[in-house]
Amino acid sequence: MTTSFAQEGDIVLLLGKDKREFMFRLQAGAELHTHRGIIRHDEVIGHRWGETLTTHIGYPYLLLQPSLDQLIRGIRRNTQIVYPKEIGYIIVKMNIGPGVRIIEAGTGSGGLTIALARMVGATGHVYTYEARPAMQALARRNLERLGLEGNVTFHLRDIAEGFEEQEADALFLDVREPWLYLEAAHAALRSGGFFGALLPTTNQVSALLAALEESRFGFVEVEELLLRAYKPVPQRLRPEDRMVAHTGYLVFARSLIAQTPT
Amino acid sequence: MTTSFAQEGDIVLLLGKDKREFMFRLQAGAELHTHRGIIRHDEVIGHRWGETLTTHIGYPYLLLQPSLDQLIRGIRRNTQIVYPKEIGYIIVKMNIGPGVRIIEAGTGSGGLTIALARMVGATGHVYTYEARPAMQALARRNLERLGLEGNVTFHLRDIAEGFEEQEADALFLDVREPWLYLEAAHAALRSGGFFGALLPTTNQVSALLAALEESRFGFVEVEELLLRAYKPVPQRLRPEDRMVAHTGYLVFARSLIAQTPT
Amino acid sequence: MTTSFAQEGDIVLLLGKDKREFMFRLQAGAELHTHRGIIRHDEVIGHRWGETLTTHIGYPYLLLQPSLDQLIRGIRRNTQIVYPKEIGYIIVKMNIGPGVRIIEAGTGSGGLTIALARMVGATGHVYTYEARPAMQALARRNLERLGLEGNVTFHLRDIAEGFEEQEADALFLDVREPWLYLEAAHAALRSGGFFGALLPTTNQVSALLAALEESRFGFVEVEELLLRAYKPVPQRLRPEDRMVAHTGYLVFARSLIAQTPT
Amino acid sequence: MTTSFAQEGDIVLLLGKDKREFMFRLQAGAELHTHRGIIRHDEVIGHRWGETLTTHIGYPYLLLQPSLDQLIRGIRRNTQIVYPKEIGYIIVKMNIGPGVRIIEAGTGSGGLTIALARMVGATGHVYTYEARPAMQALARRNLERLGLEGNVTFHLRDIAEGFEEQEADALFLDVREPWLYLEAAHAALRSGGFFGALLPTTNQVSALLAALEESRFGFVEVEELLLRAYKPVPQRLRPEDRMVAHTGYLVFARSLIAQTPT
Repeated sequence: MTTSFAQEGDIVLLLGKDKREFMFRLQAGAELHTHRGIIRHDEVIGHRWGETLTTHIGYPYLLLQPSLDQLIRGIRRNTQIVYPKEIGYIIVKMNIGPGVRIIEAGTGSGGLTIALARMVGATGHVYTYEARPAMQALARRNLERLGLEGNVTFHLRDIAEGFEEQEADALFLDVREPWLYLEAAHAALRSGGFFGALLPTTNQVSALLAALEESRFGFVEVEELLLRAYKPVPQRLRPEDRMVAHTGYLVFARSLIAQTPT
Repeated sequence: MTTSFAQEGDIVLLLGKDKREFMFRLQAGAELHTHRGIIRHDEVIGHRWGETLTTHIGYPYLLLQPSLDQLIRGIRRNTQIVYPKEIGYIIVKMNIGPGVRIIEAGTGSGGLTIALARMVGATGHVYTYEARPAMQALARRNLERLGLEGNVTFHLRDIAEGFEEQEADALFLDVREPWLYLEAAHAALRSGGFFGALLPTTNQVSALLAALEESRFGFVEVEELLLRAYKPVPQRLRPEDRMVAHTGYLVFARSLIAQTPT
Repeated sequence: MTTSFAQEGDIVLLLGKDKREFMFRLQAGAELHTHRGIIRHDEVIGHRWGETLTTHIGYPYLLLQPSLDQLIRGIRRNTQIVYPKEIGYIIVKMNIGPGVRIIEAGTGSGGLTIALARMVGATGHVYTYEARPAMQALARRNLERLGLEGNVTFHLRDIAEGFEEQEADALFLDVREPWLYLEAAHAALRSGGFFGALLPTTNQVSALLAALEESRFGFVEVEELLLRAYKPVPQRLRPEDRMVAHTGYLVFARSLIAQTPT
Repeated sequence: MTTSFAQEGDIVLLLGKDKREFMFRLQAGAELHTHRGIIRHDEVIGHRWGETLTTHIGYPYLLLQPSLDQLIRGIRRNTQIVYPKEIGYIIVKMNIGPGVRIIEAGTGSGGLTIALARMVGATGHVYTYEARPAMQALARRNLERLGLEGNVTFHLRDIAEGFEEQEADALFLDVREPWLYLEAAHAALRSGGFFGALLPTTNQVSALLAALEESRFGFVEVEELLLRAYKPVPQRLRPEDRMVAHTGYLVFARSLIAQTPT
């Protein structure tokens, strides 16, 4: 994580004064063509993070390592990604960190998978399910590009058939009808394990809540997060004119042990 | 993280039907006295997470491992803590994860320190600064209680004297006047490193933005997060009546390299 | 509205330094007993709005005419009132103003009725329905206290029996199951008239939207308003710590004319 | 307000299935040219509000009277208008209604002037100040188009010279530096009168609050309103993807009487 110089194979972010960003992997001999001129990768390799580089016509770009936030927003995708604000909250609420084993479905473009793979580290593991081969292939490429595929097992499988793992610490569902998979989720989680789901509509939240009431999950919470950006101008501080008004509702629960009647 | 049974030394959370929570470390021979009766720790040890235990007068409590969110909200404190919603977002925006070296000031009660120590894992490290001895002692006890003190160096020192570390990946300031320490922060960060601050008032945000404009930091962002909880009732889904309206404004920036004039 | 001096019969607001408010009607010979001393009404009568008066032990109170906002929040009530933020928006969205004829159900404690009666003025009229005699009596007293009862017709009647009026400009439902009354609402409104409803849960909004799709209403909108107050301190400007997170969802629609098939 | 049929001179709103809206004044002999065909005004005159009319090529448009909300959003303008959500709240907080005398500066495009003129009715009055002749002319045309100019006095004048009126019930400033005019505002208001201002930045709010502390105004409040629209789909109820994040901060205060020292 912490080398001071950009090296071949690193993912780099070039940020222009015009706010345009380019994110790519450094490759000897390759070139980046921008509408403001060309930068050869060989001219990037060996430079320090935080330096300003220029195109062949002199336009300046800032050289940065992308943050997790930027990596996720910058992946190739053909699905709606989970937003960084929700990812951060999922991490804290579902106790994700080094050493954790988490199951995720569906994989989608792999945005959340990247974050989870990064957080659980080499001592943890992510098991991710996806039924569409093309989607899985895309996610796998996104993970490989960041060198995170070693922390991830990719299942090409409909979760209606259940999960292969047991005693997982956490399980997150980003699927249309999560209420169909609560039995399977309970079977895959260790007791006390963390369940989470992200849902765009209130009708889905109601359906999931109704199913959770019939399930062996408890301690149910529903929350949403709103992120508001400000124009960073010291003498005229004010929120941006527009914002994302909705990404989804987060539902969290804990896996419980059914009481044996006495 | 992942044993199925509560063991001596574990931090446990007991959650009553009345929504009252008790968080404590299991200790053979000890007792928890609630207003609904007594539970002996020895009766908790060996039980599975997710089970329901009862007091000597039969009141049921759910046995859970606390999430990071619950740990932070449950620590002993005499300062305002950083809220879990901000902690999660800081993690994602500042690229915190296994292996990262991050500097933090002030330590306060140690809520954010706990989250950072958990996330960077054994391969990373947290360097935390605090000028008040009693506060540091409290934070240290909170970290020790969770077995996370090995990932943390506690400095008892006013950051006006600068930071001892160099080439840190990230640096977070939760202090009243962060604009006073931008030089020192830049000296402690590796180039391209992540800077963050949390500030309660708009006047402080303006002051920090003005100082950042004069500094060798760039890519400045100001954001705030609003968290809205819903009553988890499937047939009557609606937001809770009241919510926290403000915790603070987050300011993020990246450490740049000053251009040498040509 | 605009006499400069408080007169017998006026509704006055006394506001203490301790933020406690007293709202009452001035009556010669009466006394206000506060925990900070006594103020005789006769000592208030004849004073100018905006003056500071003192109790017999010298505690200062500011003498103000209540705003519509304060009047509504200060009425005697035993139901949830419609909040001023929603009332203002209802006025603008449903075209309420001098000369308008609007139907309202249920009357409840009369908070919205007060605002509507004030806005439509002597040239308009409010027709309000309530099935519970005690509730209607309370609302009537609240309106009479403000001298607004002349603009209002009080119906003691279940709206399942329909509305007595026709060709109304607007109709607002603050009832549990507004979808049951869409036929009756359409019959009472002039074509093109404004329909509005306030609902606390998402399930109710879905039910009303489904019924509206089957009805002769169109141009349907669902909106919610969040009000955030700031601490008015120039050097430490920041939002208040807590806020009301939810009052209700507003649903608006327009009465259309069914097309005759050709 | 309440004729059932569209008549010459009425402002009408035609709303297409494609969500495009046309707002104009009916004029015998005129034509509306849309990208979906032509509608002759003579074919609109005499039709009932809420009817569906068709262009010469058969595209349907719904015939509605615009609400105040729609009128304001539909005016010709070359300034930022005050949004309907703020207008409604200003009305309720500043006690605007039939019979009220209110001063406003600057006039701008006249959006707020329209709302105020509508609300105070024939028994009240709006005094509006604007220093730019072209802007005043635009606002005057917008008011005349709606037949509301009779309730309004237009002053072409810089308010640095003070206000001509006295004993006004309310005064609203939508200007860049409202703190410069607090003396003049106090002189124009009756004691106890309502002061309001709308400001886009936090720095302006701080400056106004500081000036209010030195002034003879009290009972100061700072508030902001967020409006969130939902997709009106019963089976998939959810907020719209994006929303307006910021229009401005509202500051309210009351005119007080300075205490004579004894």
